[in-house]
Amino acid sequence: MLSRQPQARAASTFDYKDPLQCQKLLDEDEIAIASVAKEYSQEKLLPRVLDAYRDENFDKNILKEMGSLGLLGATIKGYGCAGISDVAMGSSLVMGAIHDFGTQELKERFLPEMAKGDILGCFGLTEPNHGSDPGSMETTARLDPNHEGVYLLSGSKTWITNSPIADVLVVWAKLDGKIRGFLVERSRCPEGTLETPAIKNKTGLRASITGMIHMENAPVFKENMFPDVEGLKGPFACLNNARYGIAWGTMGALEDCIERSKEYALSRKQFKGNPLAKYQLIQKKLADAVTDVAYGLLACIQVGRLKQQGLLVPEMVSVIKRQNCDRALEHARRLQEIFGGNAVADEYHIGRHVANLFVAQTYEGQSDIHSLILGRAITGVQAFC
Amino acid sequence: MLSRQPQARAASTFDYKDPLQCQKLLDEDEIAIASVAKEYSQEKLLPRVLDAYRDENFDKNILKEMGSLGLLGATIKGYGCAGISDVAMGSSLVMGAIHDFGTQELKERFLPEMAKGDILGCFGLTEPNHGSDPGSMETTARLDPNHEGVYLLSGSKTWITNSPIADVLVVWAKLDGKIRGFLVERSRCPEGTLETPAIKNKTGLRASITGMIHMENAPVFKENMFPDVEGLKGPFACLNNARYGIAWGTMGALEDCIERSKEYALSRKQFKGNPLAKYQLIQKKLADAVTDVAYGLLACIQVGRLKQQGLLVPEMVSVIKRQNCDRALEHARRLQEIFGGNAVADEYHIGRHVANLFVAQTYEGQSDIHSLILGRAITGVQAFC
Amino acid sequence: MLSRQPQARAASTFDYKDPLQCQKLLDEDEIAIASVAKEYSQEKLLPRVLDAYRDENFDKNILKEMGSLGLLGATIKGYGCAGISDVAMGSSLVMGAIHDFGTQELKERFLPEMAKGDILGCFGLTEPNHGSDPGSMETTARLDPNHEGVYLLSGSKTWITNSPIADVLVVWAKLDGKIRGFLVERSRCPEGTLETPAIKNKTGLRASITGMIHMENAPVFKENMFPDVEGLKGPFACLNNARYGIAWGTMGALEDCIERSKEYALSRKQFKGNPLAKYQLIQKKLADAVTDVAYGLLACIQVGRLKQQGLLVPEMVSVIKRQNCDRALEHARRLQEIFGGNAVADEYHIGRHVANLFVAQTYEGQSDIHSLILGRAITGVQAFC
Amino acid sequence: MLSRQPQARAASTFDYKDPLQCQKLLDEDEIAIASVAKEYSQEKLLPRVLDAYRDENFDKNILKEMGSLGLLGATIKGYGCAGISDVAMGSSLVMGAIHDFGTQELKERFLPEMAKGDILGCFGLTEPNHGSDPGSMETTARLDPNHEGVYLLSGSKTWITNSPIADVLVVWAKLDGKIRGFLVERSRCPEGTLETPAIKNKTGLRASITGMIHMENAPVFKENMFPDVEGLKGPFACLNNARYGIAWGTMGALEDCIERSKEYALSRKQFKGNPLAKYQLIQKKLADAVTDVAYGLLACIQVGRLKQQGLLVPEMVSVIKRQNCDRALEHARRLQEIFGGNAVADEYHIGRHVANLFVAQTYEGQSDIHSLILGRAITGVQAFC
Repeated sequence: MLSRQPQARAASTFDYKDPLQCQKLLDEDEIAIASVAKEYSQEKLLPRVLDAYRDENFDKNILKEMGSLGLLGATIKGYGCAGISDVAMGSSLVMGAIHDFGTQELKERFLPEMAKGDILGCFGLTEPNHGSDPGSMETTARLDPNHEGVYLLSGSKTWITNSPIADVLVVWAKLDGKIRGFLVERSRCPEGTLETPAIKNKTGLRASITGMIHMENAPVFKENMFPDVEGLKGPFACLNNARYGIAWGTMGALEDCIERSKEYALSRKQFKGNPLAKYQLIQKKLADAVTDVAYGLLACIQVGRLKQQGLLVPEMVSVIKRQNCDRALEHARRLQEIFGGNAVADEYHIGRHVANLFVAQTYEGQSDIHSLILGRAITGVQAFC
Repeated sequence: MLSRQPQARAASTFDYKDPLQCQKLLDEDEIAIASVAKEYSQEKLLPRVLDAYRDENFDKNILKEMGSLGLLGATIKGYGCAGISDVAMGSSLVMGAIHDFGTQELKERFLPEMAKGDILGCFGLTEPNHGSDPGSMETTARLDPNHEGVYLLSGSKTWITNSPIADVLVVWAKLDGKIRGFLVERSRCPEGTLETPAIKNKTGLRASITGMIHMENAPVFKENMFPDVEGLKGPFACLNNARYGIAWGTMGALEDCIERSKEYALSRKQFKGNPLAKYQLIQKKLADAVTDVAYGLLACIQVGRLKQQGLLVPEMVSVIKRQNCDRALEHARRLQEIFGGNAVADEYHIGRHVANLFVAQTYEGQSDIHSLILGRAITGVQAFC
Repeated sequence: MLSRQPQARAASTFDYKDPLQCQKLLDEDEIAIASVAKEYSQEKLLPRVLDAYRDENFDKNILKEMGSLGLLGATIKGYGCAGISDVAMGSSLVMGAIHDFGTQELKERFLPEMAKGDILGCFGLTEPNHGSDPGSMETTARLDPNHEGVYLLSGSKTWITNSPIADVLVVWAKLDGKIRGFLVERSRCPEGTLETPAIKNKTGLRASITGMIHMENAPVFKENMFPDVEGLKGPFACLNNARYGIAWGTMGALEDCIERSKEYALSRKQFKGNPLAKYQLIQKKLADAVTDVAYGLLACIQVGRLKQQGLLVPEMVSVIKRQNCDRALEHARRLQEIFGGNAVADEYHIGRHVANLFVAQTYEGQSDIHSLILGRAITGVQAFC
Repeated sequence: MLSRQPQARAASTFDYKDPLQCQKLLDEDEIAIASVAKEYSQEKLLPRVLDAYRDENFDKNILKEMGSLGLLGATIKGYGCAGISDVAMGSSLVMGAIHDFGTQELKERFLPEMAKGDILGCFGLTEPNHGSDPGSMETTARLDPNHEGVYLLSGSKTWITNSPIADVLVVWAKLDGKIRGFLVERSRCPEGTLETPAIKNKTGLRASITGMIHMENAPVFKENMFPDVEGLKGPFACLNNARYGIAWGTMGALEDCIERSKEYALSRKQFKGNPLAKYQLIQKKLADAVTDVAYGLLACIQVGRLKQQGLLVPEMVSVIKRQNCDRALEHARRLQEIFGGNAVADEYHIGRHVANLFVAQTYEGQSDIHSLILGRAITGVQAFC
């Protein structure tokens, strides 16, 4: 033991799965929920993912299962939600929006059922012509001239996760030129006012369902508008939560890549019966990836703690969303090389991770955009064209 | 891409599609065949590729069409082949093997029909447990104790392009411990001696058909063995031709990525109506890619000229196969970022290029393996484990 | 451990100098000593560094000054040392060795004067032919046949910081084939038995003095041998402390690079009077560097906490030494580009940082070596040739 | 053009010093002059460079020696110059300017003596506040109100190679708002009108002398103004020649790095007596560097041939200047790692190459600037702030 203090207790060993012992920074609840989520993923999701990815299917039961484990909207306190810490779980985008901006009545109407996975939401911000620049959105809301207390929404959203199967759609639209949030209920929209076609033949995230939202005078009761939030503040606050969750998620994907690569490198023999794991070029790829997981998790934990203390600022999320996505993608690609030609077989899972991580790098703020957000925060000068 | 107009001699301008005017290094025949191939690709292949990629289909008519254009075995002189220069076209793997190592009789029997695309070949070297290290192959040939003049082949090959639809299979197997090449004719194999199942659910090269070859005493007449080539020299010579072709092919894929990215960057407006093309971060990605295409093509041309002069050594092919694959993949990934979330839509083609280029980096000698081949040539010391 | 206690609650803002608020993880003493060290560096060291670097001078007074501030051997408790936490300061290599392995008498004789900077030590492990592989060292110790209780040391060490000016030299040598540690006192060595020539014309770390140690039967009293440590364990434990300090130090150098680059980018106007800071390509360099400082500091803090709890294992130090050196060097080089041609003027300091950080990447375990140490820990297979 | 003629047919071998046999693309004269230059560099320059670099000295005799070998202004036909091809040698900046833009009289007065190295020139374009943006220069020329036929130049230039020792200074200045070129003769400038202080303590290119030019009404006869060139066209044409030469020069520096690294890797033994050259991580560094030298030289040759045919456009030079500088610097840095701690000893030369190549990346158009020049050429959109 190198330490000079006489405090050393049990002998410590190096665990490549947690090289800097991030585990020690978590409390018991956080460890417990991580364990539940991991077990569920391994036992229930993994066996289904290959088929889902091949066929672009999404099984709605997954949400019910996750709901029954308390994994939906898990940071929310009350409304049937688990109320765990930010470090324990990145927040749900839609439930988070309702919780943060909805009226008491909206929360009570929707959150408990969403927490069980019985009704499903989606979050409609991005438009076909406005990806990185939502402030230019074209979707509008206007008062229905024929029905009091009703807004009519018109416009299109795209790349909306779960839109084809959502019961409740959070839609951001301009009302008198100002961005407001609305809860569109599918069951209340007359035929022809709301269409949510799926986007098929995706090159990544194929086990997740993605679609568009086309609205032509889709009606929303006034009570379904978020009362107090106006402008980009609202959707950006929601996105910030999502980005925080993405920073965590990419590390999980990378951990799986590492584990699979290591196993493959140990089992695959080439040249005189040596495993690939004996190659220096292979070991370096593994060492690089393991290092960035450790660093990335520390950053997530730190930002999670700051979030819980109310000290979060959006640029912090830009830091970890960008870095963790970039690093996870870079390493997943390097690790994919270990599989050689076999990487092309989807049973090895690595190709799926690479494809998904590329999407993670682009959504909720493409990497370059976050660079410029940070550049502006550093220099005080803005460089968006 | 490469402009084909008669060589202007007026004031020169910069053409990003050919920044260093590689075109000037080609002769008329080479320019002509490039033009034929490009036109065919754009008009006949492009419209079919999305569906083929989605469904993992390969249309055998493609080979007949290419045959009718003289694009099959095009560097072979005679036997119904076009006899063009090495710069004009990378050689066909199977036809090249027959041409280089087959008897006169084998050439006459197979090449003319293969040149027309009427019969189809495949090249069986890689085995499930021996990817980078074919010298350890386990497939064997032995004399049939019951039929004179017949060898019986047993063993398995995998990742064999076109094996499920091939009529003639070049198979490398050990005869008395020495690697020899055999032409297995599917029509002459009794049921149960030859199986060629397709490998499905690939994460790349999905518009190309790939399979295994399982042989259990598959019979081959003595005349179908390559007479004079023994050991790894034979398959390696064939692979060298294939690698040379791959070095060219990756540049073509990258050119397409550049063109599509540039178009997207010009048409996509964000932030005050400026096109993405105005972003410095975007321009750098394009400039980097364009530069490496120019360099990569010069290297292909140079190696092609050396090949024609009989001055080629395998390490030269390692140089250009590795570098062009690595650079093309790297740039395709950077360019993919330009598309943001839209990259996930397969209609933009960029995701397919990225997936395919990753495979190109791994097949016919994974990039790291070529590093070590070069490292050995530079230092005289070998570093394979 | 990363703190979880609720803290300040005022509105938080983004501070690029501490983007993830690492400061919140430090206690008051740690913050205080960091402040002392920073003030000393800015006010006393910075004004002298240009001349020192140009002329390869090292001013011995620096050690006295640092001693008077409690900055030498600061983690040691007692013996006139400050006894601060591991997070507050990386340990002194020589004082640490004496403290960890010396007898009580040795500690009392040397540590108090070393803490004041009145006598100076150096650490002699590396030999001319054995950089990454100290186990093959050729320096030997043997009993003096003519004087009882005396060892005679013979052999050469190189790249030894401070050897030309050291009063006490920790030298590792083989006694009966086993590596042992000796305290060589310069004042007790007869002429010709100990030479410590300076190595001049260095391309980096020029403000630090470096030299060789040549010993030809240099005498050491038995009492000056570390009694209980044998083999590489001893020097490696010392090096681990040094590496831990290096991981911190590189982040400090990078912070200075960021600050200087940012200032330059804001003050330098090109093209229509815009500051360089408005360039996207510049902002990305800054954002990348700022991100890795934040991540690197979190990792240092975490490892420091584990060290204090006796939970440190050497591979953890490999993780942070390698990563922080690599990242600091990479970013310093990118930031250097911001200065354009002016980077070549040493007044901008950036060239010095780059040169020094390259040395940091190579000493105390070159980056690739640490990759292989980690690769072995991950795979269980060793890949040293 | 890359040659297509059939050439040698003896067995070819792989030569890592010329992996793609660029040599075959050169004619006899080009090979001869390369050989003269190489021999001169190895025998006359190399023995002096360490001291020159350490002390920032430049020996003016070097120019006389180079002159006597025909290496100055070598592409110029007549005026005592060698008249070799563009591939044989990058042009001299100052002599090129005089040759391309000077009157017949100026050529005859200056070129023959400059070709012999008897008088020395420098090229004054860059100003302290205008590096990447020379169009904003502040130096002015005006008619001397007291002497007919004389211009008076005022203003400052910086980072001017050889300014402190130049006899003739090409200075670009604004006359009536338009940029014009002047030949300032030091011997004709009264005291106080022309100062050319050296810039000392450079962190790179220390064996080359660099300085400023301060002019306060420095007189120039009308005959010494370039008659026909106006605006940035003139200096940019000169710089283009210089950049073309830089693209070649960086490859030479990198070749030297490769050779030295390879020698070191073979001679340095670590871990059981294996040379470093046996490390995969080392071999990859060498293979990467060797590959980019081959590619970079092909590009230089191609651009040289286009230059000779009058087909050069500036963007082509941006392509090769940027790429070859970037690649050479990147590889030199990787190769430097091979030397471990020894890299810091200047006797290994690698540190000097790295420092110099960084300067090469920034001068005559910093790498990012050339990215944007190319980005503009590709997209048609300009992204300079």
